[in-house]
Parts: sequence; C-alpha cells; structure tokens
Amino acid sequence: MSGLAMSESGLDLSHHLCSEARVRKPNPMKAIWRLTRRKPNMVSLANGDPHFSLYPLRKMEFEVASVAEEDPVASWRLDSKGPSQLLTSTIDGPCALSLKTGLAYSNGAGLPEAQRAITELTNFYHSPPDHMATLTLGNSDGITKCFRLLGEPGDHFLTDEFAFSSVTNAALPQGINWVPVKMDEGGLIPEELENTMANWKPEQGRKPHVLYTVPCGQNPTGSTLSVERRKKIYALAQRFDLIIVEDDPYYFLQYDNNSEKLSADSPFMPSFLSMDVDGRVMRVDSFSKVMAPGMRLGWITSSAAFYEQLVSYTDSSTQHPHGFGQMLITEMLGAHGWGLGGFDKWVRSLRAEYHRRRDFCLELFEREVGATGFASTNPPEAGMFLWVRVNVEKHPRYRCDMRRGDQDGPQTNVAQLMEELFEHCLDDGLVVMPASIFACPVGPKHSDKENPIEDRLHYLRVTFAGTEDVMREGFSILGRVLKQFFTEVQK
Amino acid sequence: MSGLAMSESGLDLSHHLCSEARVRKPNPMKAIWRLTRRKPNMVSLANGDPHFSLYPLRKMEFEVASVAEEDPVASWRLDSKGPSQLLTSTIDGPCALSLKTGLAYSNGAGLPEAQRAITELTNFYHSPPDHMATLTLGNSDGITKCFRLLGEPGDHFLTDEFAFSSVTNAALPQGINWVPVKMDEGGLIPEELENTMANWKPEQGRKPHVLYTVPCGQNPTGSTLSVERRKKIYALAQRFDLIIVEDDPYYFLQYDNNSEKLSADSPFMPSFLSMDVDGRVMRVDSFSKVMAPGMRLGWITSSAAFYEQLVSYTDSSTQHPHGFGQMLITEMLGAHGWGLGGFDKWVRSLRAEYHRRRDFCLELFEREVGATGFASTNPPEAGMFLWVRVNVEKHPRYRCDMRRGDQDGPQTNVAQLMEELFEHCLDDGLVVMPASIFACPVGPKHSDKENPIEDRLHYLRVTFAGTEDVMREGFSILGRVLKQFFTEVQK
Repeated sequence: MSGLAMSESGLDLSHHLCSEARVRKPNPMKAIWRLTRRKPNMVSLANGDPHFSLYPLRKMEFEVASVAEEDPVASWRLDSKGPSQLLTSTIDGPCALSLKTGLAYSNGAGLPEAQRAITELTNFYHSPPDHMATLTLGNSDGITKCFRLLGEPGDHFLTDEFAFSSVTNAALPQGINWVPVKMDEGGLIPEELENTMANWKPEQGRKPHVLYTVPCGQNPTGSTLSVERRKKIYALAQRFDLIIVEDDPYYFLQYDNNSEKLSADSPFMPSFLSMDVDGRVMRVDSFSKVMAPGMRLGWITSSAAFYEQLVSYTDSSTQHPHGFGQMLITEMLGAHGWGLGGFDKWVRSLRAEYHRRRDFCLELFEREVGATGFASTNPPEAGMFLWVRVNVEKHPRYRCDMRRGDQDGPQTNVAQLMEELFEHCLDDGLVVMPASIFACPVGPKHSDKENPIEDRLHYLRVTFAGTEDVMREGFSILGRVLKQFFTEVQK
Repeated sequence: MSGLAMSESGLDLSHHLCSEARVRKPNPMKAIWRLTRRKPNMVSLANGDPHFSLYPLRKMEFEVASVAEEDPVASWRLDSKGPSQLLTSTIDGPCALSLKTGLAYSNGAGLPEAQRAITELTNFYHSPPDHMATLTLGNSDGITKCFRLLGEPGDHFLTDEFAFSSVTNAALPQGINWVPVKMDEGGLIPEELENTMANWKPEQGRKPHVLYTVPCGQNPTGSTLSVERRKKIYALAQRFDLIIVEDDPYYFLQYDNNSEKLSADSPFMPSFLSMDVDGRVMRVDSFSKVMAPGMRLGWITSSAAFYEQLVSYTDSSTQHPHGFGQMLITEMLGAHGWGLGGFDKWVRSLRAEYHRRRDFCLELFEREVGATGFASTNPPEAGMFLWVRVNVEKHPRYRCDMRRGDQDGPQTNVAQLMEELFEHCLDDGLVVMPASIFACPVGPKHSDKENPIEDRLHYLRVTFAGTEDVMREGFSILGRVLKQFFTEVQK
C-alpha cells in the first residue's frame, strides 16, 4: 500500500484520493537527490545544485520581539524601541538551520530541521495520535493542495453554509460541488450534517466524502464549535467515512466564553486533529495570524499516507517552501530563539491583545450600532470577526411574500436590501464585508429551494483586527448609515 | 474580452486556455482588498489583516556580496570575510519595501514594488514588446501554473525529447500527453517540430498547442538553441498557433561558442520573449541559479491577458510569494542595494565563474574519460551540464539486431547496457544521471516505433556545479568504471 492512503490505524483511506493523486509518480530527480544525501560518501556529479559558496548571501538576521516580558505583545506594540532579540542564520552555522542548507534545494515536506520544530509545536498543542507535518506556503496553499488530492471533477464537498469565498471559489474550476451545511451561532450544526449525509440520494451524485470547516472563529461568522459539537462531527465523519479538512488559522486567538473568563492559563479547545484516531483529519495551520501573513508559511498535519501524497504533489508543483521562513521558524523555535515556551507566551499574550480588541469592539458596537436597534451581534469566542445581524425585518421596504404559489426562490427581499445597505456604507466611506460574498456557492442539484440562503443574507462581517481609531470611525459610520437606511432619510 | 487571453497585438489567444481557467472567477475578497487600497480615505472594517504592530518582527537584514570588486564572484568565493554589503528592511521604512508592506497580504502578482523591480530587470535583458511580470515561487511553480492554465485533460504538449523529468512527470496526472521533438547537439530541431505539426492526424487527438522548451543549457543535454533556430521555432509557433513556455533558468550562464571567446561584455542570446510580437510566449525565470535555490522566487513574463489568468490562479491557489524574497530582491535591485548595474555585474562574474568550471570540467573529462575512447562530449554553451555520449557500440555485448521482422521496439540493447553502467558507477561510489530518467514520457499513440528513444539512451548527464575536488574524484571514478565495463573486467 506504500504511497496510497493506509492510515496508521490500519484503516484504508485510499478511496478518498482523486485519480490525479493515484497516478502521480514520485519525482525521480528527488529519488536521486535523496540517494546522494543519504550516502554522504557518494561522489555526486548528479544534481545541478549551485554550490553555497556562490550564494551572494552570508548572513540573515531578524530583529524579533523579546518574550522576556510578562505581556510581550503589549510591550512590543507600545514601544517601538523596546526590548528585542536577534535571530541570526549564517552561511555555515553555528545556528539552528544554516543558509548553506536552508537556501539549497530540499524536498516537498520542508527541511528536516524545520519539520522537527513544527512537529514539536503541533505535539505541544494537539498531541495527535500518529501524524506527520508537511510544510506549506500558507493556508491557501495547504487547503487547495488537500482539495487537489481529494477532489475528483463532479465530487461533492461539505462545508459551512457561510464560508471563506476565496477557498470555496478556488475549488469550483476543479469541478468540486459544494454542499453547504446549515449553521447557527455555534457554527456548523451536527444534526444538519447528519441529515445531509443520511438522506443523500444516488441521483445527487457521489456521496460527499470531504468536510472542509473552520472550527475556531469561523470566517465569516466568527463562530466556534464546542467540544461536544466537535465530538459529534468526528463521530459522523467516522460513520459516513468523511475526511475532515480542518482549517484553523485562528486557533491561537481563542477568548473567553460564557462559562469562563480568559486568563493566560486558559486552555485551547481540542482540535479535530487531537481526536483523530482514524487518520481522517488533515489539519491546516498557518503563521499568518500569529506572526505575519506575508511570511507565506504554514503546515498540514496528516496521517502518514496522506503525508506521502502531499509531499509528492508539492515536489511536482510549488516545490518546498522558501528557506527564509524555514530558517526563521527553526531559529525562533530553537534553543537560541524563543523556544516553544516563548512561542506559547507570545501567542497567549497575542490572544489577550485580540481579546482586548474584541471587547473594545463589542462595547463600541453596542454604543454606536446596537443602540440603533437595527443590528445586533454575539461576542465571538475566537478569531477576528463580528458577524453582525442586521434586523432587516424592520426596514419599511422589507417583504417576506416574494414567493408566489409553488414558485421557487427567496421568500424575502433581504438580498436586495443588504446590497443597498452595502452601497450606502461605501458612499459614506466605509467598507464592510456583506454576507452575500460568503454564501457558499451551490450547484443546481443541491440548492435548498425551501429555505434558500438568499433569505439569510442579513449579516455583515466586520473585523476587530484594525486599530481603535479605525473601529471608532467605522462603527460611527455604520450606526449613522443604518439609521438613515432604516428610516429612509435622504442625505 | 477582459479576463480572457486577448494579446496586446490584438490576436485572440483565448482558445489556448483550458476549461478550468475559463470558469475561474476573480477572487471576490481580493476585489474588496483592492478597493480598500485604492481609496486610502476609506475606513475599512473588511479585511482580517493583522496590524503590522503585532508582527513580532521589526527588522530584517541580509549580508550580501559586495559588487564593487572587478570580479565580485571570485572575490566573494575566495574570502569568506571579504567585502560585503548590508541590505536592511525595517518595519516602517525608510527602505525599498518595508516589513509593514512586505509582510502583509498582497495580490497574486506580488507587491507593486517587487513587480516593478522585476519588470525593469526583464526590460533590461529582453525588452519584450508588451508584457507583464507575475512573481512565482520559483520555476517549478511557474511552469506547473502555465500547464494548469493551458492544459486540458487529453491535450498534447510538445517538448524536447530529453527533458527535465520533474516537469514532464508533473504534467501527466493532469492528463497532458507529451509529444517529444527530436534533438541534436544544437537542441530541438525546428524541422522535426515542423514535421510533427504538419503531419498531425485528427485521430491523434487535439493538435498540440503548447511547446515547453529550455532554450539555454537545456536540462539535461546542455544544448543551446542558436538565434537562427529560435527564429525558425517562433515562426513555426506563429504558423501552427503554439504557445511557447520558455523555461530559462540558465539564461545568465551563457559561455563562449565556436565563433567568439567569452568576455564580460559578451551579449546574452535573444530570448523567445524578446521576439514575441504576438503575446504567445510565457517566459519563466528564476533566481535559483544566480542567487540560491532555497529562495523559491521567480517570475513569469507574459502578455497582459495571460498575466490576468496567472494572477487569478495564484490568488486561488498558492497566493502571492513570501515577503522575505520580495523585500530582499526589491532592496537588492534598488538604489541602496546592487542596483540593476550591480546585478548585471554579479551575473556576468558568475557566468565567468561557471565558464571556468566548465573548462576545468572539460579538461578533466578529456583526460580521465575521453581518453578511454569509451565516451565523448560537446562543450556546452550554457548551463551546468555536460551531456556525455557513451560509445556503447564498442561494448562487447552491444547488439543492434534486437528487432525481428516487423516487430516493434528497440533495435539495440543500449537501455540495458546503460542501466548496467549506472549500477557500476553506484557500486564504485559515483552518482550520475542516466539519460533514461530524462526520456520524455510518451503516450502509446505517439511513440516512435521506427526510431524509439530506447536506442538513444547512451548518454549520462554530469554537472560542473560542484567543487573541483568532487569533479576530480568523480571523473576519475567514471573513467575507471568505463574501462572496466567496456573490457568486462571483474573487480
């Protein structure tokens, strides 16, 4: 079964691979490349790798935040000359990962040093049963690679009914059809997932075999799956033989919930990966939200068999990630950098910072927007977003009698009113994200004619990732625009 | 026609796009992202971009070679403490591209500052008629993205009969069939290309519409297309409506040829891009060979319409390249770095260095290998490789009567003897690249039964990218193994 998807539990998951993945052969050049590195006494005239003495680079140095402070993010943010630390990589060491190695060709999974550092990080937070890490070029790259491995043209993938459109759109040209699963303020509803799977009819096509979901601070709804929902969803994945693509960029940004106040010691929610006894979870992680998006560095943790496929596909497409990020991360997580303890301190401090922003944002929202009575929101337990429910039923031109007889289509004019509201915001100098952008695209066979999403577009996504000034100004405009819009006052 | 492949010359090239590309929609998130950046007075609560004050990075610094010396590569290589230059990027400037911008999200083509620097570089060497640059994650990423845009399952792409197997293999799972074009020491033979296209029969499937080729120091044959051949091939591309994917990583490593000795002023060969009046060339460039492979940074230069498609596909898969490389390159090519003049000095000095290596390698080859009479080679005019012809006809067990009657298949046992030779090399501690690895994979409909490639596998690829010590030891082993193998001496 080598090369096919046999999980470590002995479960054969190879039927989840698409035909492209099944016929892909390991790169023969990489085989010889590995041969020469495995046997250091071999004389190699084989690979056309430039010698490191010809790299015009001798040293790379990053000035990074110190994590010695009690609340390192707050200290760093407030004092642009405050304490820092230097992470230095030199051409031939001593350092955690030299330029000589980091800037050479390597294989798809990333350099062993970087892989090790990432694996320790994953073990620290998730203790997955038996999984391996492949480096990626960030979450978008990681997710689309999972789709390329799993998706056959005509296949159906399940996802949250409101989802990040960059991801859902990216799958469409590949021929993947989306099957949206209804959500509430707690995220994807397990019973709806069960309904969809249990009532799937052969004429709808191949039964969905992949669930793509964002469990923490879901984009755009800001919802977070409770532990109970996660367990139910994993059990359903076992029952219906689903692969779960767990996209979790906001994992470290988990705040308090109804039952507990946030402290530095507050635990993180158990991930799907941590429960994955079958090897059916492909967890996609990223440094974008806890370090910087432009790093374009992330990783996928999967069972060994999917790991092999990911590496092979990476070798045959993007190749391994850049050395800069691999060197930075290896140095940062190593003995001369933050170490894992320092990283943990940073992300907990960052979580506290975003928690402050969230609370600031909620307070502003209530004062400027909630007080109008035309919109409301729930405090998100993770992530960067408020999902603002616009009380569109209060609009003088609201209609809920649009459907005539046994006609299909929306019952309300919510979509049109929300479009108008979005335009009004723009006219007043405010950009928000309308729900319509995130409505999961559905093929004609699967659209819910009884209860179409057009009737549930009365939401806006706003972020608290920006500065306090931006939030102040933004919510002030939003409140004003809502009042004008609902009372149809012409400016 | 916006979004489809109308070239700037007015030629409609949209029929070259595959169906995936035709149905791909621009990323709606990027549209809003662009909106907020175009109108700086807009207040945005839209994009979940971490604020730069929360990046744990304040400064990035590279110690790079000084280009003040007459022969900067020689100076740099010989003195590990020799003169260098610091390239510094800070969080908020002043610098060519700050961390604030470089480490934020951007769009698929790369940051405007980096794109500008790359465009100037391309204009300097190629003066293309009217093209645009998209940044990539290196050549492998660039090429496979071109294939994804152009290749429909079942399509036929043309390429050199010996080609880089990582690339030819990568296209197979996508359903692309290769049609190899015969080569000689001057590379791809235009008349063979013409024959293939002129004699294409409908029952062979859709006529090839893409030619993938490496014009300089072709991998693995080391051959370089002359200006005359380039002109002929471009004219054939016009006649038969072919898109040329010009993969040119060795462009800067062009040496002397029969007519002229190499000097610092020696010109570079005109590229296909430089001739591209139609917009039918997609040129793929990389920093891997002139800086370092682990940078994973390159660019594609194409007509505006293919550019749009590339950006849209990049936004929907890998996303834009990492900020580290973009900041490094922008700083290096800018006023505080090498500048374009310094870069040109570096690559010309690097070319002289590889030229010395080539000559050293050729001398060694003649003494250790050529002198045995069992192998020969031509001096390559570019790149990193010698293509060693093994005189396999001299082997005592050589046979050229393998084909009986009207049977198909090879006439000789070249493939088997070369396999044995490769194993003998390994046994003696030497890794070389056998020609069999590079034989372009062919579908059953197109295999050349009269003149199959199995009879032309009497080549080895060796590189002069390594150190002199490695070359000395390597060629000494190769000479010895050849003598033993051809005289069937048992060790």
